[in-house]
Amino acid sequence: MSKTRKFRLGAFIQATGHHVSAWRHPDAQIDAGLNFEHYKEITQTAERGLFDAVFLADSPGVWGGTPETQSRNGKIVHFEPVTLFSALSAVTQNIGFVATASTTYEDPYTLARKFASLDHLSKGRAAWNVVTTGNENAAQNFGLEHHPDHSQRYERAEEFVEVVKGLWDSWEDDAFIRDRESGIYFDREKLHILNHKGKYFSVKGPLNVGRPIQGYPVIVQAGASEAGRDLAARTAEVIFTANQTLEDAQEFYADLKGRLAKYGRSPDDLKIMPGAFPIIGRTEAEAQEKYEFLQSLIHPDVAWSILKQYYKGVDLSKYSLDDLAPELPSDTNTNKSRLKLVKDLATRGNLTLRQLYLSLSTARGHRTILGTPESIADQLEEWFNNGAADGFNIMPPILPTGLDDFVNLVIPILQKRGLFRTEYEGRTLRENLGLRRPANRLAAKGREERLVVA
Amino acid sequence: MSKTRKFRLGAFIQATGHHVSAWRHPDAQIDAGLNFEHYKEITQTAERGLFDAVFLADSPGVWGGTPETQSRNGKIVHFEPVTLFSALSAVTQNIGFVATASTTYEDPYTLARKFASLDHLSKGRAAWNVVTTGNENAAQNFGLEHHPDHSQRYERAEEFVEVVKGLWDSWEDDAFIRDRESGIYFDREKLHILNHKGKYFSVKGPLNVGRPIQGYPVIVQAGASEAGRDLAARTAEVIFTANQTLEDAQEFYADLKGRLAKYGRSPDDLKIMPGAFPIIGRTEAEAQEKYEFLQSLIHPDVAWSILKQYYKGVDLSKYSLDDLAPELPSDTNTNKSRLKLVKDLATRGNLTLRQLYLSLSTARGHRTILGTPESIADQLEEWFNNGAADGFNIMPPILPTGLDDFVNLVIPILQKRGLFRTEYEGRTLRENLGLRRPANRLAAKGREERLVVA
Repeated sequence: MSKTRKFRLGAFIQATGHHVSAWRHPDAQIDAGLNFEHYKEITQTAERGLFDAVFLADSPGVWGGTPETQSRNGKIVHFEPVTLFSALSAVTQNIGFVATASTTYEDPYTLARKFASLDHLSKGRAAWNVVTTGNENAAQNFGLEHHPDHSQRYERAEEFVEVVKGLWDSWEDDAFIRDRESGIYFDREKLHILNHKGKYFSVKGPLNVGRPIQGYPVIVQAGASEAGRDLAARTAEVIFTANQTLEDAQEFYADLKGRLAKYGRSPDDLKIMPGAFPIIGRTEAEAQEKYEFLQSLIHPDVAWSILKQYYKGVDLSKYSLDDLAPELPSDTNTNKSRLKLVKDLATRGNLTLRQLYLSLSTARGHRTILGTPESIADQLEEWFNNGAADGFNIMPPILPTGLDDFVNLVIPILQKRGLFRTEYEGRTLRENLGLRRPANRLAAKGREERLVVA
Repeated sequence: MSKTRKFRLGAFIQATGHHVSAWRHPDAQIDAGLNFEHYKEITQTAERGLFDAVFLADSPGVWGGTPETQSRNGKIVHFEPVTLFSALSAVTQNIGFVATASTTYEDPYTLARKFASLDHLSKGRAAWNVVTTGNENAAQNFGLEHHPDHSQRYERAEEFVEVVKGLWDSWEDDAFIRDRESGIYFDREKLHILNHKGKYFSVKGPLNVGRPIQGYPVIVQAGASEAGRDLAARTAEVIFTANQTLEDAQEFYADLKGRLAKYGRSPDDLKIMPGAFPIIGRTEAEAQEKYEFLQSLIHPDVAWSILKQYYKGVDLSKYSLDDLAPELPSDTNTNKSRLKLVKDLATRGNLTLRQLYLSLSTARGHRTILGTPESIADQLEEWFNNGAADGFNIMPPILPTGLDDFVNLVIPILQKRGLFRTEYEGRTLRENLGLRRPANRLAAKGREERLVVA
């Protein structure tokens, strides 16, 4: 094994693809959201390409908008991520699974169980993308009048993650002795009862699943607000972030890596992987043409609906798409980091509303990279070599073809340059990502402090 | 296809097997609970045997007992059922999946999503075993001091099931038109917002998964208390029940089928499948020997722990295992139907405590059938032909061998007698069970009453 620093690559797979109107493209799998064969094909493609993991976003509710724009959304129905990944684990060998799940709308015991179960099913390939949920529609599916505010969501998230880790530590790794002769199945000294009582949760434990193969599934985060950065510095092992420019990405990278020491962590304990939305052509002109064709698929209703998400409370009715974008409102209760990024975009370029929605529609604020396979590799390498990224979360515009192109055309170039693996290094996702297996924190406490199970 | 009435068969798979000390048997897969290859093997065996479904029990917490007896429990850790079944759906074609999930400790939106997701992943092979949870240890994993009482659990369960069905009806079956030309993905008239506001739940909807392939996953129940029977008559399509004698089974069968008309249902809309714990030998003597060997594996600690579950609040310290079983306490907040059955057992036979625990330990109150393959088939056929069962939930004492024996030795006899299928009749679990696909109740309401999505 070479010791050279290598790209970490995630395949961010989103039904028909990441472009807002991907489903209208003739190459897209039009019923992708609930088509298992489709996900099986793209996950096996990602595994053939030696990606570290596939990644699924999620929220427990449909996305809003007016009835008109909603009916144009080709991603409105889809599998729940953990069930889908469980099924995919049975038809793959090496690739990891990053499932998004909400600390605002799930219960820690139920969540700890399903991720521990996925980690055992996949023999150590599970990861949890911890989100507080940005979709305000979720609240009313769970008996709440309003989506809890940002600070309350983050406070709950912090306690939630600690409870889940505590439940994963219920059993020591070697607790199960299974001695047929004496009839003792496990060593009671290696069973730990969490007995958590906090502000948001009272959870006794133990978990009824053994300690995950990886100790804990890999902890992933995306939020880049101040609260999000701090939570990530404390708990995240991978960050899927959104940056448009090298400078912003460098700032984010340096800031996050700089916060780790405070929590007794080293820079290598956290992998930073910005999203990248690649449009790949045999020539630059072909890539540009592909891009323009995709953009032409966006219906004006959808364009206005994208803009309205960011201009909450602003009357846009007097504007045309060719007017300069007005100033954005200063605060919302959804996704703070995304808002800042959009503001930067609008401020930096004196964009028209059309330019703004075209920019947002491709990758929802993530970086768009366009060009030949060599040029795509160059653009990724530039960030990797200049303190902006440890790897990337690749967001194919349309699926399955957008991922095929990346695996067939770009991966071999990255391998030739020595930037990417030519075979999986380990058996678990943690081993492939170069992350340490966490120790059991309850075991370290010393036996006399522990309670026996009631 | 012959029109003769045929057995419905479920394979109730429980880690190392149903016997309380199964894991000590040399043929049992000793780490079964978290061994995916094991479940894959037994599920493929059940599919080879043309079983309608495999069935998993569940509760969100470990089972209690003293530390001593708990450490002898070979089933204390195991996969969460829906994640396991999702994985198994990818390596099977026809067999159904009955996953237990709790209406007391889950949220309707989350539960509706995961079962709809499993139904799509498996192309119509999902079923939900609706339980209110008998394991009192669950409460403290979910922030409750005490397990809610029986009547409150059943009241909540009733509302829970209605909410889940409403969420499954969010989309009409043909809602997704996916017209690339106009850019319309779904017909807004075929999206329905539940807007449920009840005593226990406020759930707006819609679900972010399309209508399940089966309309609804098959609804299964087990509870046989008065409240349980009534809920089953209203909502269940399959009942997994526990009966020891033909007379009890006939009473239960007639009572349940008799309650259906009140809810506008016909006797065929509900399949009643008592549990059966088969000990199969080439000769009667061999079967008896197998049984006695299994019983000899029960440690006295485990015996007392089984008895204590039923004698809550009774001091058993002055008894020996050879004393006659004292009277059971008259009420508990756990499993009412199971308690009645145990009482009947003790009352009927003037059992000693040893005889009582030996009887309970095999199949926890379910019917034990012992003998040659022909005799096993006879014992099943007797109930099937005498108004006691539409089929059976087979509970192998040890796994994987107990299921192998049933599939290799008993299934061919049932087929020869014309009592069981020789190939799957349908593509979905519903089709195989001969159950109707439910209509969408929100669609039937008429368009003007419906709200558009906010």
